[in-house]
Parts: sequence; structure tokens; C-alpha cells
Amino acid sequence: MPSKYAELRKKALQKTRKKLKESMYKRDHLIVKVVRTIDELDRTINLLTERLRDWYSVYFPELERELPELRDYVRAVAGTGYREKYSGRLAEAAEKTVGADLPDRDVERMIGFAKRIEGLLEERDSLVEYLEELVSQEAPNMNALVGPTIAARLISIAGSLERLAEMPSSTIQVLGAEKALFAHLRKKGVPSPKHGVIFSHPAISGAKKRLRGKIARRLAGKIAIAAKVDYFKGEFVGDKLREEFEKEVEELKSQK
Amino acid sequence: MPSKYAELRKKALQKTRKKLKESMYKRDHLIVKVVRTIDELDRTINLLTERLRDWYSVYFPELERELPELRDYVRAVAGTGYREKYSGRLAEAAEKTVGADLPDRDVERMIGFAKRIEGLLEERDSLVEYLEELVSQEAPNMNALVGPTIAARLISIAGSLERLAEMPSSTIQVLGAEKALFAHLRKKGVPSPKHGVIFSHPAISGAKKRLRGKIARRLAGKIAIAAKVDYFKGEFVGDKLREEFEKEVEELKSQK
Repeated sequence: MPSKYAELRKKALQKTRKKLKESMYKRDHLIVKVVRTIDELDRTINLLTERLRDWYSVYFPELERELPELRDYVRAVAGTGYREKYSGRLAEAAEKTVGADLPDRDVERMIGFAKRIEGLLEERDSLVEYLEELVSQEAPNMNALVGPTIAARLISIAGSLERLAEMPSSTIQVLGAEKALFAHLRKKGVPSPKHGVIFSHPAISGAKKRLRGKIARRLAGKIAIAAKVDYFKGEFVGDKLREEFEKEVEELKSQK
Repeated sequence: MPSKYAELRKKALQKTRKKLKESMYKRDHLIVKVVRTIDELDRTINLLTERLRDWYSVYFPELERELPELRDYVRAVAGTGYREKYSGRLAEAAEKTVGADLPDRDVERMIGFAKRIEGLLEERDSLVEYLEELVSQEAPNMNALVGPTIAARLISIAGSLERLAEMPSSTIQVLGAEKALFAHLRKKGVPSPKHGVIFSHPAISGAKKRLRGKIARRLAGKIAIAAKVDYFKGEFVGDKLREEFEKEVEELKSQK
């Protein structure tokens, strides 16, 4: 009965497809993708702004020194652009410029390019908001414990929430410090890193140096729990974990 | 009379500033900046599209195989995006997808990102047009001889029209093949490169291999003249140079 086999095959295919679909449908995968997209946007925005500075400096080289911050510079060129339109301190600089007097249509192209970079900056900011939303929905416990940025970065480095949930807290503690970890494993005398991504948590970066390793170990322990609860969609314990962690930090500090 | 010195100083400063301004005002500098900006945009667009493919594949992984061309892919995601909106062959692929069924608001973010990449593609195309205009105005002879792309690239590698005009034709011939040239100078047995940027000229890339070096030498000779005429703003001889070059190529070919 070949028709029966054909039917079986069809059903098996359907089932496999459905399973595949389900395995794909983990929204935490989106967290990983969005983190990587934001990182690439950051790199891209830097590179394109370097080009803009180089190009616009034919016309108004002094602006680089006046506005060293990337966002200020891009906004000024995109929003003002023509030298005669600047005001205040910038107007003075524009008046005394050694830049070339270019026809408007050349300046226009620089302004147009600056506006594209501005668009990428907007995109970046709106993706950060979106990422925070994703994290608060898909990893509410980690979100409550360490905030969306650190949570997203840990999930992204682990590759998925599932893999993070499988990691021991000692691994989580140094996640993001792989370079330092391998240096430690390879060379004698290089100390093991005490904290990776989680270093940017204020409880660690703000603590005295000799306490940082201890606090990082405590925090990694709580994150390991939060990640497991998030992955298995257990009851919300994020706030409780954070309070426990804060108490432990206080105790460590009071021991002097 | 300190006031006289002050006045002198002021005048000297003004004069220097004016001289600086004039030295900046060479529109061929813009050619160099715009070439570099286009190159950076190309790199950027590639990197961001890789991110888009990776991200959108959570939702519709089959589209990568269906639309391998970067522009097709970006346009499809930016313009259609939602799986149920595709038509024809793509609708079939969308129906059978193993991608995750995501809520609209997740897909929306991917579409938004694709639209930014589309914006960068538009920017790139409009800068290419602008570059062609700059070259036709600032280097009309080179433009007539080899077209705007090769002309712009030669000026950009040389650093300015002035520097290109100072180069002997043997240097122009290998401009853009610096890597191969240094390999030749360093190692025995590596032949000297016969053509750099100018290789992309159809008279060379379309010629038989054994003729390419000879044709490249002829072309470089004509470019060296064109660059000098452009720099010193001499009378237009671009068309004449091109005709001469074409005749020389015919002669070389007829010699068999």
C-alpha cells in the first residue's frame, strides 16, 4: 500500500515541521539577535561618523574640537549644517573657520549623510527599548535581579536562555571575560578573572576592590537561580532574589 | 608702538587664514572623501544585512535561500515582511516555513530595521551619482578617458588630484595593486603587477591575458596626461586621448 506510506511520510513531515517550529519559537532567541544587532549598529555608527567628520572637516574643521561627542556632532551637522546657521560659540568658530567655502549643494550632501547616521541612532535607541521589553517578558526574574542590560548580555553570550539556565554560577560569574579566563588557564601567574559581564552591576563596580570578587560570586549565584526560574517559567522570585543579594552585600561590607 | 605690532599680527593671521582656506578649497578633496564614504557604506550595509538575515531567520529562515542577493532580501523584508503578504514562489515558501510564529510586533521591528538598511542603500546610490558629477566637473579629462568610477578611485588612492598629477604613468599603472607590488619587491619570483585599479577598465579586463600588460601601460600613459591636464585646468583633450587609446588597443590586437 504505497499510498499508506505516502500518508505516513506526509504526517511524519508535518510533525517534524511542527516540532521544528516549536523549537524555533522561543522568544529568548530574539533577545540574542537584538543584542547582536545593537552591537553591530554601534560599530557601524562609529565608523560612519568617522567618515562624516573627515568629510565635513573640508568645510568646517573646527567643529570636531568643539563637539567631541559623537551624538552632538552628528546632530549639529544633520540639524544645522551650514556654517552661517550656527549660533553662540559655534557661530564664532564658524566665522573664523579655515574650512573651504563650498557651494550649498556640496554641504547639502554632508547634511544628508549626517541625517542617515541620525536615523541609525534612533534605530539603536528604539531597539534598546524593545530589548528591555523582551527581557522583562522572557526573563522577568533576571530582569528584576540585574536589570535588562546585564540580563540581555548574559543570555546573548550564553547563546540562549536555555544554555544560561544550564550553566553553573561559577561560569556565569566570568561570562564575558573569556579572554581573561583563557589567559589565566594558559599562563602561570595570571589570576583567574573574578567577574565578566556582571562587573558592570553597580554593586560590584561601586564596591571596594577587595570585596568585588566576593560580591560577584554572590550575584552569580542568584543569577543562576533566576535564569533557571525564567527558563522553566516558575513563579516570580526576582524581587526576593534581589533583596537577598542586597542583604548579603550589606553583610560583606559590614565585616570590613 | 605695541599697537602697530598688534595690527601686524592681526593682518598676518588673516592672511594665513585666507591662504589656508584657499588650500582647503580644492573640490577634488571632496572626491576622496566621498569615495571613502561610499566604501564604508558598502561595508556597513553588508554587516547590517548579515544581522538582518540572522534575526529575520527566526521568523522565515527559507527567505535566505530564496533571495541570496542582498538588495532583493532587504527589499523583501522592508517592503513585505509579514509571511502572509508574500506572493508567488515566496508565498509557497512562507506557507511551509519552519520559522517561528511570532506576534506582529516582533516582525514589525525586523521590518523597521530592514527599512534603515534600505535607506543606507539609497544613500549609497545617491552618493555614487554625486561622485560622478564631482568627477565630471573636477576631472573632465580623466572622466572622458576612463569614466567616473576608475577616475574617482585613482584620485582617492593617490590622495588628491595634485598627487595623481605628479605621478609617473608606471605608478599609475599599478595604483591599487600595492599589495602585489610589495610582494614583488620583497620576494624573488613574484612577477610585478601589471595593473591595479585600471584593471577594471573593459579594454583591459576584456582583453586576452598576454595583451593586458601592454594595454594597461598604454592606458596608464594616457591617464597620466589627463590627470595633469585636469589638475592644471588645461583645455579639454579627454575625447582625443580616448580615441588615441582606442586606436592603440586596435593596433595591439591586430599585431596578434
